[in-house]
Amino acid sequence: MSVKIKTNYAMPFLSEGEVSAFQQKITDAHKALHEKTGAGNDFTGWVDLPVDYDKEEFARIKAAAEKIKKNNEVLIVIGIGGSYLGARAVIEFIKGQCYNAMADDCAKIYFSGNSISSSSFAEILHIIKDKDFAVNVISKSGTTTEPAIAFRMLRELLIERYGKEGAADRIYVTTDKAKGTLKAFADKEGYETFVVPDDVGGRYSVLTAVGLLPIAAAGIDIDALMEGAAEAREKLMPTSIEENDCYKYVAVRNALYNKGLKSEMFVSYEPCFTMMNEWLKQLFGESEGKENKGLFPTSAIFSTDLHSLGQYIQEGERILFESVVTFDKPRAEIYLKEDSENVDGLNFLAGKSMAFVNEKAFQGTVLAHNDGGVPNIIIENEDMKEKTLGYLIYFFEKACAVSGYVLGINPFDQPGVESYKRNMFALLGKPGYEKEKEALELRLNK
Amino acid sequence: MSVKIKTNYAMPFLSEGEVSAFQQKITDAHKALHEKTGAGNDFTGWVDLPVDYDKEEFARIKAAAEKIKKNNEVLIVIGIGGSYLGARAVIEFIKGQCYNAMADDCAKIYFSGNSISSSSFAEILHIIKDKDFAVNVISKSGTTTEPAIAFRMLRELLIERYGKEGAADRIYVTTDKAKGTLKAFADKEGYETFVVPDDVGGRYSVLTAVGLLPIAAAGIDIDALMEGAAEAREKLMPTSIEENDCYKYVAVRNALYNKGLKSEMFVSYEPCFTMMNEWLKQLFGESEGKENKGLFPTSAIFSTDLHSLGQYIQEGERILFESVVTFDKPRAEIYLKEDSENVDGLNFLAGKSMAFVNEKAFQGTVLAHNDGGVPNIIIENEDMKEKTLGYLIYFFEKACAVSGYVLGINPFDQPGVESYKRNMFALLGKPGYEKEKEALELRLNK
Repeated sequence: MSVKIKTNYAMPFLSEGEVSAFQQKITDAHKALHEKTGAGNDFTGWVDLPVDYDKEEFARIKAAAEKIKKNNEVLIVIGIGGSYLGARAVIEFIKGQCYNAMADDCAKIYFSGNSISSSSFAEILHIIKDKDFAVNVISKSGTTTEPAIAFRMLRELLIERYGKEGAADRIYVTTDKAKGTLKAFADKEGYETFVVPDDVGGRYSVLTAVGLLPIAAAGIDIDALMEGAAEAREKLMPTSIEENDCYKYVAVRNALYNKGLKSEMFVSYEPCFTMMNEWLKQLFGESEGKENKGLFPTSAIFSTDLHSLGQYIQEGERILFESVVTFDKPRAEIYLKEDSENVDGLNFLAGKSMAFVNEKAFQGTVLAHNDGGVPNIIIENEDMKEKTLGYLIYFFEKACAVSGYVLGINPFDQPGVESYKRNMFALLGKPGYEKEKEALELRLNK
Repeated sequence: MSVKIKTNYAMPFLSEGEVSAFQQKITDAHKALHEKTGAGNDFTGWVDLPVDYDKEEFARIKAAAEKIKKNNEVLIVIGIGGSYLGARAVIEFIKGQCYNAMADDCAKIYFSGNSISSSSFAEILHIIKDKDFAVNVISKSGTTTEPAIAFRMLRELLIERYGKEGAADRIYVTTDKAKGTLKAFADKEGYETFVVPDDVGGRYSVLTAVGLLPIAAAGIDIDALMEGAAEAREKLMPTSIEENDCYKYVAVRNALYNKGLKSEMFVSYEPCFTMMNEWLKQLFGESEGKENKGLFPTSAIFSTDLHSLGQYIQEGERILFESVVTFDKPRAEIYLKEDSENVDGLNFLAGKSMAFVNEKAFQGTVLAHNDGGVPNIIIENEDMKEKTLGYLIYFFEKACAVSGYVLGINPFDQPGVESYKRNMFALLGKPGYEKEKEALELRLNK
């Protein structure tokens, strides 16, 4: 198994030298990452995670997932950013976008605490009004506003409905292993806890308990997911661009960025990749968007969005390149049949599979977009199974980290995320922010 | 009722003159639009549509929606681009993202035929395997590949399950009023038909039968939706930027584009606006992305994506501005309570509503992003009801059309969408494309 990078639809826009120029920087970045000498090296726990994880906790995750499935119709996963995107992305990719409508032998899984919208929270309350439910709250500190509000309300509802002990049996807490108010509280109340590791940032945390508990509760094979990641960890070690497709991808995307293409559009021909696209946008956007630098990550699903963004990609401002994630084997094989009426004129496709048609749409689009001046990097995968996805996840995590070092920024911090929080706390009247409050309100009333 | 544009978080980045410079162009564009003298004037039927629509068909839409709800557990809406985005966007905004999980007295609505993914189509087949279902196929010609494949298969399934007559009772066809193979076939088979008007392009078609039948089937008040649009049509007539907020928006967004900001990010603090963002991306991207010009439309949901794209917006490349769509009254009021434990430290918010917290998040973010060099245009709405949404839809349609004329392109065509289709047909071996096939295959095998 592997992820293969095809560059033949990008190289017409680049010279060989523009790509190979990144070899030295990539070699240095590789060293900095593996020798833990680079910026943010306290947060590189994800590098060896696929083999070096807590086996006892992993077994507990599987047991908890079984218990959740057995006793509940619904699992509410409370978390924001990295504490929800990875799990949701994997679940939708493996089980399908309509996974809840098809969850015959599993709890239905809804994500909450990732916004402050009461309209949205009211939907969750409506759904669980007559259903047995459990909660998995995911928060390193336990004080992040969005998940804290949701947990506060759903915990109260659980206690109201099942009593304190009954509620304790339905609350699963993924948080810091020792610090933080949530850990202490969970221990006191007897909630089962799982660990957000200290050395893995939110956007790199999908293969920790943060992602794995909801993923396992959805009935997904987390062993295979970890195996795929472990294989990627082993295979993606060569420093040479020619021998390591992960680094080839890093070189080509940075070469295109250097040419003035400011946005990387992640594309898939599988609608169930939609949330994986969102996960990629957090991974790359939050890692690289610093010091007024970094590729602006955007996304599309084709052929769906060829009928919405397609016109822009083909003929709009030339500021884009595409990174197209493909899968050789679809999850289901469906064949077109002869139709005696042939109203749609598609009888020439009789006997062909939808996958064949989808592949020709992909090939036709790549050539059309190339003709329109849009370079394409192709990221080829074998199938749509857990192991392959685990490999792909690790592939992108490593590409992102090395790319960040190549760009000269710290790919593991996110200082800019604090700005809105500070303002929000002040405007909300949080004790200790009185001075800021006054200054901000003056600006608002201008 | 009205949509109000607040420019005070954009003007620090612009001079008054840079905005007012657009007045003449906007006045000219307004005239060209209303006097039907501009490019693409054959496709301006949407301008008077909110009052000048087919009342008999409107009544039939409501009757068909009732019949669908009564006889079916599921409605499959088959369409791509403008033939699905508008309906899905309105349904999710009004009924909530989890509308199917809450559809107690309606048919559940799924969208299909908007991709060529067999994995995705298999989900639909799984969902309807033991459920009574109806189909609404939406296609002007009846030969667009994606919906044609889905309709071919689902029609066969309906006939298999209900017989030819039973199937005819469950198939609703929205297509050309006279031309096209689908119209002739539907008449022959006795399917009820609705009209895709000749003078309304796909991305402007949400308030025609294209959008209205699925929307009505979801239990949404389409009278109110049309009333809101009619009010917008009446109110958005002044040509002066100062008197017409629609044109003020046009002036400011184009002034920001002229400053080198290449991407407009549509933002909402309501997750149920997610698909409205996608609708906006088609509307603006497909209208403006021509001749290597046009703002690149992107989107985000806050505070959700402040924990993914937030870092990039705050500190990445300075190529963005935001257009933030706000709603004064949420759909549900939910209040925070005192918690004796106060584990999350949020007791200072006891007694406050989530809407209050969400508003402070918005205010804090606008100021933070301004500090980061990102202009914000605020697009204020009163509530989240049908009438308001109808107004907002018309507001954006008119802003897009006038903006396109200001940019000097035809906002009603989409020549670039054909490029991938031609290539795809050739690679699929469609009769008549033999020469192109050979040439394209040579390029693929390079």
